[in-house]
Amino acid sequence: MQANGICNVIIPDAKDLGRALCIITGASKGFGRTIAKEISLLLKPRSVLVLAARSDDKLRELQENLASSDAGKAGLVTRCVVVDLGMKEGVESVIRAAKEISSEDIEHLILINNAASLGDVSRYAQSFTNMAEVDSYLSLNVSSALSLTAGLLQVFPRRQGLRRCVVNVSSLCALQPLPSWVLYCTGKAARDMMFRVLAEEEPDLRVLNYSPGPLDTDMQVEARDCTADPGVRKSFSVMLSQGQLLTCEDSCAKLMKVLLEDEYTSGAHLDFYDL
Amino acid sequence: MQANGICNVIIPDAKDLGRALCIITGASKGFGRTIAKEISLLLKPRSVLVLAARSDDKLRELQENLASSDAGKAGLVTRCVVVDLGMKEGVESVIRAAKEISSEDIEHLILINNAASLGDVSRYAQSFTNMAEVDSYLSLNVSSALSLTAGLLQVFPRRQGLRRCVVNVSSLCALQPLPSWVLYCTGKAARDMMFRVLAEEEPDLRVLNYSPGPLDTDMQVEARDCTADPGVRKSFSVMLSQGQLLTCEDSCAKLMKVLLEDEYTSGAHLDFYDL
Repeated sequence: MQANGICNVIIPDAKDLGRALCIITGASKGFGRTIAKEISLLLKPRSVLVLAARSDDKLRELQENLASSDAGKAGLVTRCVVVDLGMKEGVESVIRAAKEISSEDIEHLILINNAASLGDVSRYAQSFTNMAEVDSYLSLNVSSALSLTAGLLQVFPRRQGLRRCVVNVSSLCALQPLPSWVLYCTGKAARDMMFRVLAEEEPDLRVLNYSPGPLDTDMQVEARDCTADPGVRKSFSVMLSQGQLLTCEDSCAKLMKVLLEDEYTSGAHLDFYDL
Repeated sequence: MQANGICNVIIPDAKDLGRALCIITGASKGFGRTIAKEISLLLKPRSVLVLAARSDDKLRELQENLASSDAGKAGLVTRCVVVDLGMKEGVESVIRAAKEISSEDIEHLILINNAASLGDVSRYAQSFTNMAEVDSYLSLNVSSALSLTAGLLQVFPRRQGLRRCVVNVSSLCALQPLPSWVLYCTGKAARDMMFRVLAEEEPDLRVLNYSPGPLDTDMQVEARDCTADPGVRKSFSVMLSQGQLLTCEDSCAKLMKVLLEDEYTSGAHLDFYDL
């Protein structure tokens, strides 16, 4: 059985991620939701999951699923935080929730910066004359990831017996420009660099920029339907028709393997296809 | 005599940049000011320089210098726009000024996105919990460059006989993380990617990410005095004491050479030391 998506990957030494406080943004659907489900299977009892997203219903549904799962029955605690991470109050709520719910015996802090928006891909760069639109995009996709990460690292400072790990859900677009995807590419490039700086600054921290590959998600549908550039749009259709899209489970399995092995260079950009 | 800094560079075929409308942001001091002076020597009579910066006095002084220079006497028109490019009104003012002052016989649109701030380098990434501070930095350093570029490309669309060129004053920090420089590195990485996307989208446009090297400017003093990371701070002191800082004139000379030759791959990141 491969229901959890990790059975087809050889898992090395470490079998779990310890007693963890794990914060996942954008957890209500797509890749974030899959990460929440998969990582719950790798956490020791009395671990805590903090799930942040805008959608209340979907978060609650996920919380119920997790509560009735083996992990939930074994004592996993899940806290939902319904927030807009494009607002500072949203970021502060997540930090506060993590602080409130965490206990002293946490061995592992894991932050998965997954929340992201595609931006308007139906237009080319030279249409972005509205600075407020660009500001708003960067606020949600760049500033909030930095503020949230910084806030959590302050609340959970370096201490004996605590491992700390920050994952940035990145993209090939952090490295390669894609016509009509100026906001997305810019935001992803900015985030990668931000987390590379963090990795340089904090040697005790484990920082990973993980590029999950082309996932079969709502965002992919939006990309396929809305992308202005005909060549790029076609390449998405071809990926779909030729079965090249990845399931969230397959990509998440590789991410979990990397986290368990814990051998990556901190700050590195790792792509699904390179693993 | 090497007063203008370009005499020691072999200038190939093209001897000038044509009858140009040239917009330079952050033109009141440092590299932007040098670009204004040097480029004025390469423009044909009846060209127009639009100089944008926050400092009124320094802009006016530059304008007077240019008016009494050979270029000024030969008919170069200079317009100053005193603005804060971190605000949309600032960006709009520059676009409006360029539109008002331009004439139909312009052969070359040149936009030099030079304005930038260092950000607070006295602190590490994990201190940036204030989202508004990050937002504000990205607004000035990323959003405004996109909005200004987009607005100018709309006002001066592709047409027969008009060359269009956009320069992003980049940095090694767009490629390499520097401890305690999280905002600067993030902003520069974001800008590079933004202009790479633009280059992919607009094949008729010439887009250059130029990294000018370590310049002997006010920003360098700020970097040397304020950088939190001791290793990075020391490296700036060593650069100064060993005479490794570049003059704005030397770096600008290479940029002018690249613009005159016009042989770079659009969207490329070119570094002073690679040229």
